[in-house]
Amino acid sequence: MYNNFMSRVLIKVEYDGRNFFGWQKQPNKRTVQEELEKAIEKLTGERVEVFASGRTDRGVHALDQGVHFDLEKEIPVSRLVTAINNLLPNDVSVKKAKKVANDFHARFDIKSKTYIYQIYNAKTKSALFANRSAFVNYDLDIDKMKSVADLLQGKHNFKGFCSADATVKDFEREIYSINVTRKGKFIKIEVTGNGFLYNMVRIIAGTIVDAGRGLLTEESVKKALENGDRSFAGRTMPPEGLFLTKTNY
Amino acid sequence: MYNNFMSRVLIKVEYDGRNFFGWQKQPNKRTVQEELEKAIEKLTGERVEVFASGRTDRGVHALDQGVHFDLEKEIPVSRLVTAINNLLPNDVSVKKAKKVANDFHARFDIKSKTYIYQIYNAKTKSALFANRSAFVNYDLDIDKMKSVADLLQGKHNFKGFCSADATVKDFEREIYSINVTRKGKFIKIEVTGNGFLYNMVRIIAGTIVDAGRGLLTEESVKKALENGDRSFAGRTMPPEGLFLTKTNY
Repeated sequence: MYNNFMSRVLIKVEYDGRNFFGWQKQPNKRTVQEELEKAIEKLTGERVEVFASGRTDRGVHALDQGVHFDLEKEIPVSRLVTAINNLLPNDVSVKKAKKVANDFHARFDIKSKTYIYQIYNAKTKSALFANRSAFVNYDLDIDKMKSVADLLQGKHNFKGFCSADATVKDFEREIYSINVTRKGKFIKIEVTGNGFLYNMVRIIAGTIVDAGRGLLTEESVKKALENGDRSFAGRTMPPEGLFLTKTNY
Repeated sequence: MYNNFMSRVLIKVEYDGRNFFGWQKQPNKRTVQEELEKAIEKLTGERVEVFASGRTDRGVHALDQGVHFDLEKEIPVSRLVTAINNLLPNDVSVKKAKKVANDFHARFDIKSKTYIYQIYNAKTKSALFANRSAFVNYDLDIDKMKSVADLLQGKHNFKGFCSADATVKDFEREIYSINVTRKGKFIKIEVTGNGFLYNMVRIIAGTIVDAGRGLLTEESVKKALENGDRSFAGRTMPPEGLFLTKTNY
């Protein structure tokens, strides 16, 4: 018989953000949170609330969103992944599941998160990557992009790199690494850090792109880091290029 | 001023097949053909008919579909790509345009076509690749797949590798190459040939997959080639894994 019974479960979730109004439940909108809760209820008969490592906006994708929830019924973890997947729509899937301690929290126990911002850099747009990249049709100087990425690494006050969010008081975050790579028409900006403010990755990507385009100087980026003034950083890139690729607990 | 005026134009078209009922116009269905004709009419004021290298089914993608049409008005080819793209929805885009001879035909002048059939081979399904790969969750033996791919190369009667299509009488086609490659969880079957029968690439992919799974022997595949009996070949793989990647004129 099964010994591997659960109460609190951590799952890793992949989703294609195209047809979602983001992670968080809202009335009359299709959200990832609601699809997961509906599938878990169908499977277990239990109405659960699921908690993510953080919200993602409308159109943002995830390969490894960390999500926890509690179950009263005893269901073997080994069967949970396939059982939930059979009840989920095509654009959400569960990759892994494991039992965690009863005080584990998908948001507060995060050690680091990695995002990739994907840019399709070409003269003509791509239909197949329209919803999974930002289309940039001007030339980008990769070396300038890398230099600005280097400036942003480390522990900083990122007040100049976020959109207004009334609940946040502490703007210090640490970015462990930012890597900018080009492969054919695709440019990827991979950012790993201990935590991110609202829209922070999209603004970091926009700052790197604006620098690569020659619109923004390193001096301006340094000022944004020093004085926390949003106007010294770059634009907010659109959501469809953003992927949450790793949640590390 | 512009000298580069056109009458017959060849464009190369990319589309994400997910939300289309295939290439060909049908009443009350969203099709690639109709979206292109609408955009060209908006741009030029001319109601044109566009001709593709071949139809693609519902859900099938293209990176390089060859399409021709005639224009009476003189529009410089150099501006056509961006101008049409600005009028197209996100999931269709024009990559290139050039003037061709008045007797050129996108279907009949094709020299070769290349398709890629993409398989996501893993224990758990992928939300991000659900509409652009076939999910196969059992083990596949790549060497067996390659052996069967080799058998199918060359000039054969492919009657056993197509779905019924009343208009076809000649089943001989030549396959120039089939390459099976694995990279991580993705297996790609790339097929280049002088022409393809209805569902032929999806049945070739299914034959290679069934062989890789140990369900189909090389003997059976040889019989399908010799006697044209569909029941000796493999299954028809689903449309969402299929990409028309190259039309060569």
